[in-house]
Amino acid sequence: MIKLGSGLSESQVKIGQRVGVAWQRDICGACGMCLTEGGETRCFEQLNSGRKIDGTFAEYTVVPYRYLTKLIEGPEDQVLAPILCGGVTIYKGLKICGATPGQWVVVSGAGGGVGALGIQYSKAMGYRTIAIDAGKEKEKYCLDLGAEVFIDLKTTADIASVVRENTSGRGAAAVLVTAGSGKAYQDALGMLGPFGSLVCIGIPPPSQLVNFHPLLFIDMGIRIIGSAVGTRLDIQEAIEFVQRGLVHPTVQMTTLEQLSEVSEQIVQGKVGI
Amino acid sequence: MIKLGSGLSESQVKIGQRVGVAWQRDICGACGMCLTEGGETRCFEQLNSGRKIDGTFAEYTVVPYRYLTKLIEGPEDQVLAPILCGGVTIYKGLKICGATPGQWVVVSGAGGGVGALGIQYSKAMGYRTIAIDAGKEKEKYCLDLGAEVFIDLKTTADIASVVRENTSGRGAAAVLVTAGSGKAYQDALGMLGPFGSLVCIGIPPPSQLVNFHPLLFIDMGIRIIGSAVGTRLDIQEAIEFVQRGLVHPTVQMTTLEQLSEVSEQIVQGKVGI
Amino acid sequence: MIKLGSGLSESQVKIGQRVGVAWQRDICGACGMCLTEGGETRCFEQLNSGRKIDGTFAEYTVVPYRYLTKLIEGPEDQVLAPILCGGVTIYKGLKICGATPGQWVVVSGAGGGVGALGIQYSKAMGYRTIAIDAGKEKEKYCLDLGAEVFIDLKTTADIASVVRENTSGRGAAAVLVTAGSGKAYQDALGMLGPFGSLVCIGIPPPSQLVNFHPLLFIDMGIRIIGSAVGTRLDIQEAIEFVQRGLVHPTVQMTTLEQLSEVSEQIVQGKVGI
Amino acid sequence: MIKLGSGLSESQVKIGQRVGVAWQRDICGACGMCLTEGGETRCFEQLNSGRKIDGTFAEYTVVPYRYLTKLIEGPEDQVLAPILCGGVTIYKGLKICGATPGQWVVVSGAGGGVGALGIQYSKAMGYRTIAIDAGKEKEKYCLDLGAEVFIDLKTTADIASVVRENTSGRGAAAVLVTAGSGKAYQDALGMLGPFGSLVCIGIPPPSQLVNFHPLLFIDMGIRIIGSAVGTRLDIQEAIEFVQRGLVHPTVQMTTLEQLSEVSEQIVQGKVGI
Repeated sequence: MIKLGSGLSESQVKIGQRVGVAWQRDICGACGMCLTEGGETRCFEQLNSGRKIDGTFAEYTVVPYRYLTKLIEGPEDQVLAPILCGGVTIYKGLKICGATPGQWVVVSGAGGGVGALGIQYSKAMGYRTIAIDAGKEKEKYCLDLGAEVFIDLKTTADIASVVRENTSGRGAAAVLVTAGSGKAYQDALGMLGPFGSLVCIGIPPPSQLVNFHPLLFIDMGIRIIGSAVGTRLDIQEAIEFVQRGLVHPTVQMTTLEQLSEVSEQIVQGKVGI
Repeated sequence: MIKLGSGLSESQVKIGQRVGVAWQRDICGACGMCLTEGGETRCFEQLNSGRKIDGTFAEYTVVPYRYLTKLIEGPEDQVLAPILCGGVTIYKGLKICGATPGQWVVVSGAGGGVGALGIQYSKAMGYRTIAIDAGKEKEKYCLDLGAEVFIDLKTTADIASVVRENTSGRGAAAVLVTAGSGKAYQDALGMLGPFGSLVCIGIPPPSQLVNFHPLLFIDMGIRIIGSAVGTRLDIQEAIEFVQRGLVHPTVQMTTLEQLSEVSEQIVQGKVGI
Repeated sequence: MIKLGSGLSESQVKIGQRVGVAWQRDICGACGMCLTEGGETRCFEQLNSGRKIDGTFAEYTVVPYRYLTKLIEGPEDQVLAPILCGGVTIYKGLKICGATPGQWVVVSGAGGGVGALGIQYSKAMGYRTIAIDAGKEKEKYCLDLGAEVFIDLKTTADIASVVRENTSGRGAAAVLVTAGSGKAYQDALGMLGPFGSLVCIGIPPPSQLVNFHPLLFIDMGIRIIGSAVGTRLDIQEAIEFVQRGLVHPTVQMTTLEQLSEVSEQIVQGKVGI
Repeated sequence: MIKLGSGLSESQVKIGQRVGVAWQRDICGACGMCLTEGGETRCFEQLNSGRKIDGTFAEYTVVPYRYLTKLIEGPEDQVLAPILCGGVTIYKGLKICGATPGQWVVVSGAGGGVGALGIQYSKAMGYRTIAIDAGKEKEKYCLDLGAEVFIDLKTTADIASVVRENTSGRGAAAVLVTAGSGKAYQDALGMLGPFGSLVCIGIPPPSQLVNFHPLLFIDMGIRIIGSAVGTRLDIQEAIEFVQRGLVHPTVQMTTLEQLSEVSEQIVQGKVGI
């Protein structure tokens, strides 16, 4: 007599429906994180595509139905795929960053894959965006994507001061660090205005630690938080921005046969991620 | 290769473990509520014990393993059972009520089953408690359970004023209405102090509506919210108060054979719930 | 030796600076609201322009320096003035409404003065906006201002259903009622999706009450809150949208001599507010 | 005609009333912090007792009336005085720590002046308290004050593990570091459970920095925040706990003449603070 949970409910995906497979492939539903409201994306025993189990560089794969993400019809596969990991990650970071639309948000590492999506989501969500990255090429890229200010980390001695100058002296309402760099985090702490939030997204190498003095939190009321991908609803919301034409992932199509070659290029820095 | 979700994970209940079956028997995991963080207890397609499926007045029952609530050893079955529905409901109401421990909280309908647990949780959670109910017997009961103030709704013309007098003129930080009475809700709106919260818990008959004028929200910064049972973690937290000896459900033991008789007594008002 | 508070601090307005006089003219700084964080706009003893003291239909007026609102140079007086009351009110309502940019927000009474600013702020803040008002003229006006959907309350039998249809069945993340109409509030309750917020802004006549049944809050997780103008910082933030060209108040210039005539026209409904 | 702000309002202190002078002596009311809701205790130009202006080791002093803290009659001066700085600081830290009463809170530096008040407030506010300090004497002191668990930092190799053992493996819901020690903060990061909060209160020497790796925030959902004394309302709330007999500051009375001698003893570590 108990049907729910042992099969598909009316609200779940149907055979033939367009679906996506996200980074988060399944959760245990019973660990300390899963039991905590909003903790599902941090399940201690989660399965991730391409980590403990095979990933999605394949034509067929097996996925628990409840973790199939419903996808809308319309946008092409290649522009939806990046949203299922990088896109939803930065979207969720902005969703929880605490800034009010109209306030200044800094995206650090803005010329990378997640960062470039970050500029677009930030603008589409009503924030004023300061992009931080290196070089003239990245500058043009970031400004074209919607950043109002670009700060070149190679040529700027005191980035935090420039952020302050561009925010009427107040500092940023939030800084989202998408760069996997300890220094990017270190700089970020100095950019925050009253009650601002540093949102951890990029993962530096284990040896790159960030340091702080507690007085900064006491005096400025700031906070540090982290963002971990997003729920299935977050993904649906993030995709809607693509559907509405407000976010355009930059993608380069290739074939399964060329995967090794492309991977090599990424390692050599010839293709950005 | 995919094990999670298709079987028991390490973090889930084991055979032989002490478990409980709560009001919420299973969720669909995919509706608009389930997809929303914190929405699981409001699943639009949830199965509830004793509603769409058989309840727990039985010796054997089938429950999806992921909705078996892990129970600690120690307290007797009969003192844990009420926590799995009424106890966790009022505990969750207090958890989200927004009041800081030390501030005044009103429990309306305090002499009923949920209300009496409410007085005990409220005290154990550091709140100062005002209990509202009717009659000398309830007064003694509520004060014995830990209320600092009792207001008799039968003999008090202006309950809101008495609440204000007992809170240094400020009003309550939160009012939790456990009574299934429109009038109890109507009175509650006048008891709230600046930025106070009215928490809906008791369910009046469909015809008993509550009136408000929007200016009350504009001028006082108050809010109305609702509480719907609690998650499996909320239940574990609620049970810990029983284990620590801070909450003692008042229970009356009977047998399955006497169920019809007891139900009849409840209908006739001879046994409180 | 104590200088602060007994004179102008460095951070305060200077002689010659451009300033505005808002609806909130001064606060007591010591009542239950003023002592509560975020409570200043609800000071129980506040002075308001044109209520207990003379208003701003004058060439000279006396205002406590600390409640002079610093104004940026640039926009003309007549486009900043409406922001100091109506503009900041709807901006603050959106700031606290709890919706994430990209989600659907309903502005009820969207064709009025506050509502029309609401459509523009809502769009500029990244929300998708559903406007509710009456008539073809208002429809064109609201869609031109940036609403994606217009619902005509005169020709729509079940407004809540139309909101649901336009939000993929989910309902709105927030409804801001700017209309001073009990019916507008009554309808609003049915438009909210999971955990949505009804934000009270418009003030109906005292006799127009709104009614609810507590089950709506228990089942849907919704909340009712209110918004009361905004702080001096909120005003500065609201003005920045005007400076950026994202919000354009519709104003009609007249002279002090014609005030009585214009007031008469407003009473007769010939000029919108 | 404008009276408010230029004199005493009805809600403010009266001549003859019992008042206190807190650490925060006055604020500018117009800086970036003062303009931000909840920012008043972090005013960038605030006057503090004993810093930019003379302190309270005096028989007479001049204080702006609006920053005179209203005190209730009853408790003796010497038990109220510590609440106006250290007491309200730890009370406010607990008020914003995000833990639900019944959950585990760690007070690090629990045997010091602020820490000892922290144990008492924590218990009175319904939290379960783990105290961290050094030595048998402090252990007895902390347990007597209401801590359920004491961890001796001198004899415990892995403090974080002991915290985890005592919290059913979950970790603490909040850690309040009152010790002015970089190491205390460093240890604290490892004690937090899912979505736990590290609250910065104690101020280490400028050279003692704390290190973190962003992955901790991403994986665990934790946050770091800071607490800065408290508002006048926070002080009133903190004092109420003293009045109710739930918090007893340990004080040692002396005379103004002996101040130099006592200061010397504090420097030599003969008197705890």
